Amino acid sequence: MATVPSSTLSKAHMNSCSIGFYCNKDLFFSSVSPKRFVPRKLTLCSNHNSYPNAVSMHDGSVVKKVNPIENEVSAKKLKEAVLSVSPPLQEQKDGAGLDFNTENSTVSITIVGASGDLAKKKIFPALFALYYEGCLPEHFSIFGYARSKMTDAELRVMVSRTLTCRIDKRENCDEKMEQFLQRCFYHSGQYDSQEHFRDLDRKLKEHEAGRVSNRLFYLSIPPNIFVDAVKCASVSASAANGWTRVIVEKPFGRDSESSAALTKSLKQYLDEDQIFRIDHYLGKELVENLSVLRFSNLIFEPLWSRQYIRNVQFIFSENFGTEGRGGYFDNYGIVRDIMQNHLLQILALFAMETPVSLDAEDIRNEKVKVLRSMRTLTLDDIVIGQYKGDTRGGVTYPGYIDDNTVPKDSLTPTFAAAALFIDNPRWDGVPFLMKAGKALHKRGAEIRVQFRHVPGNLYKKTFGTDLDQATNELVIRVQPDEAIYLKINNKVPGLGMRLDRSNLNLLYAARYSKEIPDAYERLLLDAIEGERRLFIRSDELDAAWSLFTPVLKEIEEKKVTPEYYPYGSRGPVIAHYLAARHKVRWGDIIEDE
Amino acid sequence: MATVPSSTLSKAHMNSCSIGFYCNKDLFFSSVSPKRFVPRKLTLCSNHNSYPNAVSMHDGSVVKKVNPIENEVSAKKLKEAVLSVSPPLQEQKDGAGLDFNTENSTVSITIVGASGDLAKKKIFPALFALYYEGCLPEHFSIFGYARSKMTDAELRVMVSRTLTCRIDKRENCDEKMEQFLQRCFYHSGQYDSQEHFRDLDRKLKEHEAGRVSNRLFYLSIPPNIFVDAVKCASVSASAANGWTRVIVEKPFGRDSESSAALTKSLKQYLDEDQIFRIDHYLGKELVENLSVLRFSNLIFEPLWSRQYIRNVQFIFSENFGTEGRGGYFDNYGIVRDIMQNHLLQILALFAMETPVSLDAEDIRNEKVKVLRSMRTLTLDDIVIGQYKGDTRGGVTYPGYIDDNTVPKDSLTPTFAAAALFIDNPRWDGVPFLMKAGKALHKRGAEIRVQFRHVPGNLYKKTFGTDLDQATNELVIRVQPDEAIYLKINNKVPGLGMRLDRSNLNLLYAARYSKEIPDAYERLLLDAIEGERRLFIRSDELDAAWSLFTPVLKEIEEKKVTPEYYPYGSRGPVIAHYLAARHKVRWGDIIEDE
Repeated sequence: MATVPSSTLSKAHMNSCSIGFYCNKDLFFSSVSPKRFVPRKLTLCSNHNSYPNAVSMHDGSVVKKVNPIENEVSAKKLKEAVLSVSPPLQEQKDGAGLDFNTENSTVSITIVGASGDLAKKKIFPALFALYYEGCLPEHFSIFGYARSKMTDAELRVMVSRTLTCRIDKRENCDEKMEQFLQRCFYHSGQYDSQEHFRDLDRKLKEHEAGRVSNRLFYLSIPPNIFVDAVKCASVSASAANGWTRVIVEKPFGRDSESSAALTKSLKQYLDEDQIFRIDHYLGKELVENLSVLRFSNLIFEPLWSRQYIRNVQFIFSENFGTEGRGGYFDNYGIVRDIMQNHLLQILALFAMETPVSLDAEDIRNEKVKVLRSMRTLTLDDIVIGQYKGDTRGGVTYPGYIDDNTVPKDSLTPTFAAAALFIDNPRWDGVPFLMKAGKALHKRGAEIRVQFRHVPGNLYKKTFGTDLDQATNELVIRVQPDEAIYLKINNKVPGLGMRLDRSNLNLLYAARYSKEIPDAYERLLLDAIEGERRLFIRSDELDAAWSLFTPVLKEIEEKKVTPEYYPYGSRGPVIAHYLAARHKVRWGDIIEDE
Repeated sequence: MATVPSSTLSKAHMNSCSIGFYCNKDLFFSSVSPKRFVPRKLTLCSNHNSYPNAVSMHDGSVVKKVNPIENEVSAKKLKEAVLSVSPPLQEQKDGAGLDFNTENSTVSITIVGASGDLAKKKIFPALFALYYEGCLPEHFSIFGYARSKMTDAELRVMVSRTLTCRIDKRENCDEKMEQFLQRCFYHSGQYDSQEHFRDLDRKLKEHEAGRVSNRLFYLSIPPNIFVDAVKCASVSASAANGWTRVIVEKPFGRDSESSAALTKSLKQYLDEDQIFRIDHYLGKELVENLSVLRFSNLIFEPLWSRQYIRNVQFIFSENFGTEGRGGYFDNYGIVRDIMQNHLLQILALFAMETPVSLDAEDIRNEKVKVLRSMRTLTLDDIVIGQYKGDTRGGVTYPGYIDDNTVPKDSLTPTFAAAALFIDNPRWDGVPFLMKAGKALHKRGAEIRVQFRHVPGNLYKKTFGTDLDQATNELVIRVQPDEAIYLKINNKVPGLGMRLDRSNLNLLYAARYSKEIPDAYERLLLDAIEGERRLFIRSDELDAAWSLFTPVLKEIEEKKVTPEYYPYGSRGPVIAHYLAARHKVRWGDIIEDE
């Protein structure tokens, strides 16, 4: 296939926004100043919209329920208010020919690989949830694209099986579901066929019915056909007069070179601005909240540096193995699958300097800076493990290599722990520990910030010999049971002077009655709105790979044997030795005891 | 009455300790170094005694129950361990003739004013609770002393009416109560009669049966007879070979001069070390915990200054008036009754510099320093109110002057709010606000620490116009429902970027299953153990009076009219104007809304 020069693509429209009130950036600010970001609370999909109510206060025990009817009313009011704002002159000039009236613009979302698991389990349900919440534009269509033959009706049956009315179990759910399914269509085609994508383009045009077209392609397909599909989509099915955006998911290569090659290929057909690289951890509620916690609470401001923080831990664990689906995983391993992306992204958000603003580019600039300040990992900084079979209570749990899709001699790590360092003034010398594993005794993801000892502790005698356990710790539990808690030393009530470590707690389930949206909802909505904050820019990706690539190569070249740990255990003991080398204890293990 | 030279008193024994393991200071350290303090966890009355278990950790939701049986066992073990420690040589020399074996020492506690309310409601029950918990020494007697005629049996009946098995409702309570009552005796006498006190002395000696005698007098009598009773007790009923201590309660005068005169009179008969001035607020659990929070948690260390704290509020409210007992109160008013002592004491603990150690003298030195760094109040710094009658829902609530014991033209404040300033490097410019009132809409005591704005707040837009309400606040709720919570800004879960103020909570009732001891228990035990940390030294008292005396005089001389507020309301509006002058909002009012 011939390379299509990027100028043939609708790049001219990339920085423009054509969907009325969904795209606040361009509505509220001149597009000449692309760095401005209006928080989403101004959009229809915030829970509350008016400023005076943005901050509410509660006593510890009181939970205020959000009244959905009120929200709808205020959302409508806001919509009217927003729509009554005249677009700035500059915008009208830049977006010549575009119409800001929603009546005249559409969004078409094409899920390439529509019959796959991710599409069925995550993407369609997330789109339905957005529809349900009134977050999709007035005119939208959803197209499933895959190789198998299927009618629209068959797709709808398939999709309907995974839709639930997860939010608040409100009335009209069946009705809404039916309405949603009527907006879903199917198109059968090869992933590398320009002709089939041209057919899709025709169908999309029919649905767009002469309105301004905006097109989002979600590539839910194996990485080896990414580039072909991107090429076909952009050459044959780009939006004629609106934006065209492509969402891609990991793996983004398996090392610096392959990642760079992929980026280069994608950029033959797409601008950086059109590529939305998903790391779905960035869409998780408590990861989103990390910046809020840091930057909107004065109490954390002085604490956030080497002066007060002793170490930071990023911990991910799954309580199941590959379970017969290890084929893909075996080529990547836990470091590529979890650490180099999810955990490193959270680390970057945690450790970055204060950005100039909350704009996507400002945040991503800071993330790149912190990643580039990090020390490249060596074999000394990482330990690996692999789970083996175990029998407990009469039940036999398979080992990793018992998975039929995994080679019997596989050395692929299913567990890894690593110590990372950021060589900048804020974090010099502070170990950032990561730990990720499959087939462990529990499932969860959390951030643990362990603070230093109290200098000249007056209560040293009271703590006795174990001052190490008496330091403060901030825990952000990303999943499950979202929570934030701060371990503090407290006097145990009573006549004596006994101290213990109690928690200052914020348990989401106790505080917020609303269900927490899935990460995919947030990310899909962001992609539709053109909000790039939670997507990974190519220079971030390069920086992330360059930290891990040398050590990954060394592990593979030297055939480093992982330490074996039983299925369902706490992982290999070697993780403790790694932590001990840096004078750290894993917080999750202490808490389990 | 002739002045008795202080040399006739048993001063020689004041700095010695004669009750074995109850008095750790002297057991563990040479008495040459009086500044050392061993936290009470080493005594029998701590809840846990062994070092390795001193710090325990819990997940947010888990509450570990203290097993009373285990505690008793470990307490016994410790007792053996402690008793097996040989007293240091120095101690034996200093305490010549004293016996460290509990077999040979006694404590006699005489409650002067035994038929009064405080004695019945607080002192006897607290002593019983200490007995129940095994915190009283092996040999002890309790004497009620008052003018009315009563037999031991009658006293026991009177006392038994107010005793409850408040702690855990354990078994053997009736049995223990009976044993306790058998140790209670009554002696009838005038408060100013040396002869009657000599009679008491004879009875005490009988009970002491030749053992080393230690005597504690609790003066639960009106202030005008303090000095007479102290004189009689010290001249005629001092311990012959152990210590003699006297507990006195407020009022300690009503201004600098009368307070100094009282101190001077007391010191004719007692050494400073023998005077235990109770401020029962210092015995409250969360006030005790204040220093633990500050000094054993690194996270608070950088925050505790003008750089991060915008203002601090000390709030006391009662939801009832004088209710026919305003006679005493009318002579003092709310400023003397609550502010100048309770709230100012808490302020001093809150704001003091880090003491050299947790020893009484070190802590009291720092408290005096901070009190002496404070600006003397002027009429601009204080507002006063008085409650008036109100009828709501058909119920009529009386005004202050409707109280028959109060003069009809009384201007005595039943409410006051004040702004205080500490002119030292740590607190320069930070308003410390106090508010205290009777007959308000609720009852409670709390400390509120309001932090400054986030400089360069990235989320400014999200908060809208009311950044003031988006600052962090630490609340220490002293009573009721003891709690600590930290208000933080948090992202409301959902697709939008809405922030709210949530609490990081530590609710005592949820975390600790054990009932919190009454302040009097702690203070009585401290007095028996010679632990002076929670009692007020005379220089502290002087410093406290000198802050308030000029303004109190001015209010009285100028007959400043209080602002009237309805019984059961939130108090006079003028308190808000005072706060507004210092750019502060009362945290409790905001939270109520």
